[in-house]
Amino acid sequence: MADIISSHPHNELSRRGLLFVLSSPSGAGKSTLAGMLLEADDQIAMSVSVTTRPQRPGEVDGKDYHFVTGTEFEEMVADQALLEYATVFGNRYGTPAAPVQKSLEAGQDVLFDIDWQGTQQLYQRAGEDVVRIFILPPSLADLRDRLESRATDSNEIIDSRMQRAASEISHWDGYDYVLINDDRDACFAKIQNILTTERMRRSRQTGLIGFVRDLVAQDLE
Amino acid sequence: MADIISSHPHNELSRRGLLFVLSSPSGAGKSTLAGMLLEADDQIAMSVSVTTRPQRPGEVDGKDYHFVTGTEFEEMVADQALLEYATVFGNRYGTPAAPVQKSLEAGQDVLFDIDWQGTQQLYQRAGEDVVRIFILPPSLADLRDRLESRATDSNEIIDSRMQRAASEISHWDGYDYVLINDDRDACFAKIQNILTTERMRRSRQTGLIGFVRDLVAQDLE
Repeated sequence: MADIISSHPHNELSRRGLLFVLSSPSGAGKSTLAGMLLEADDQIAMSVSVTTRPQRPGEVDGKDYHFVTGTEFEEMVADQALLEYATVFGNRYGTPAAPVQKSLEAGQDVLFDIDWQGTQQLYQRAGEDVVRIFILPPSLADLRDRLESRATDSNEIIDSRMQRAASEISHWDGYDYVLINDDRDACFAKIQNILTTERMRRSRQTGLIGFVRDLVAQDLE
Repeated sequence: MADIISSHPHNELSRRGLLFVLSSPSGAGKSTLAGMLLEADDQIAMSVSVTTRPQRPGEVDGKDYHFVTGTEFEEMVADQALLEYATVFGNRYGTPAAPVQKSLEAGQDVLFDIDWQGTQQLYQRAGEDVVRIFILPPSLADLRDRLESRATDSNEIIDSRMQRAASEISHWDGYDYVLINDDRDACFAKIQNILTTERMRRSRQTGLIGFVRDLVAQDLE
């Protein structure tokens, strides 16, 4: 990251990273969009969660998850070392605060694929640093189609996912941006546009203060 | 503007307009950038000010300015009918509130070419609707070059403009975005990126509430 008056053609100043949240009901295309973003943009990386769930074959500790015991997890909760956490099917998942803090200070962005409750917790802990995007399906029929095309789930599971989707959608107004994913590439372009702009916000452009100081000092020479 | 579930390919919903402020010291290229934006984007128009200054040949009342008497101006101030106003070389200039309000409700954006004091007044009256961009020159030497290349002003006037520039620059931190205009096209692309994103903010996407209501209602049919 360049310092103060950089030789970079667009005067890229140092900046604070941001926490970029993508939420959506299951099947609205969020994972695809998150994957596209990680592929296209080398200034953002996925947050690595801690979990109490057993490590599966092929999973790498510290890359897919940080695998911890229930006691270790409880200690992190008690120490406020987790920015958000939840219990899913009896297993616990959480976002460790320390690496996120380090990324923010290094001008690196962190991508979160979390639900509205996780987003709310994250926002309470790190409001100014958080940018929240909610992805909507163009219709519920479209959402059901996508869930059915996976062909792995029974009708019963799909029905329960559809109910969870309606409940998740009801929290759309807790987000900064709400996008309708009726065209994957158009939706992705919007996500990139938002990220580019949010990075430019004065409050995140930590190098500006030095740039302006040097700019005004030139006059006195 | 499309209503609720639109047939538009990208589901363009109705939205509230925004007030887009470009400020900069004289000579930093702001007028050129404002002109490029008005040319490229048909959803934004320049705010037409009221002024007590005499109409010049070629100027059209209601297009270049609304020409008013000193008494009329005073009445507008007393009625809080101006969003911001200032006195320059003994003439008074101000932004009438009514057409701006109308534009906001029609989903049309309004462009303002005003200084930091006007921006502050505008923000106090219409904070949520305002997006503030400050344009910096890459260096003061560059700013002086641009002022000198106009070849219309004496050295004395240029010196006084340079002093005003330093004073204007000192208010850079009252803006949402601060851009360094070291490359006109790159700076313009940033301005367009910011405008696109700010239009997408949930708080401005007034059509979303209807879209979500209809989306969730589909499930019950």
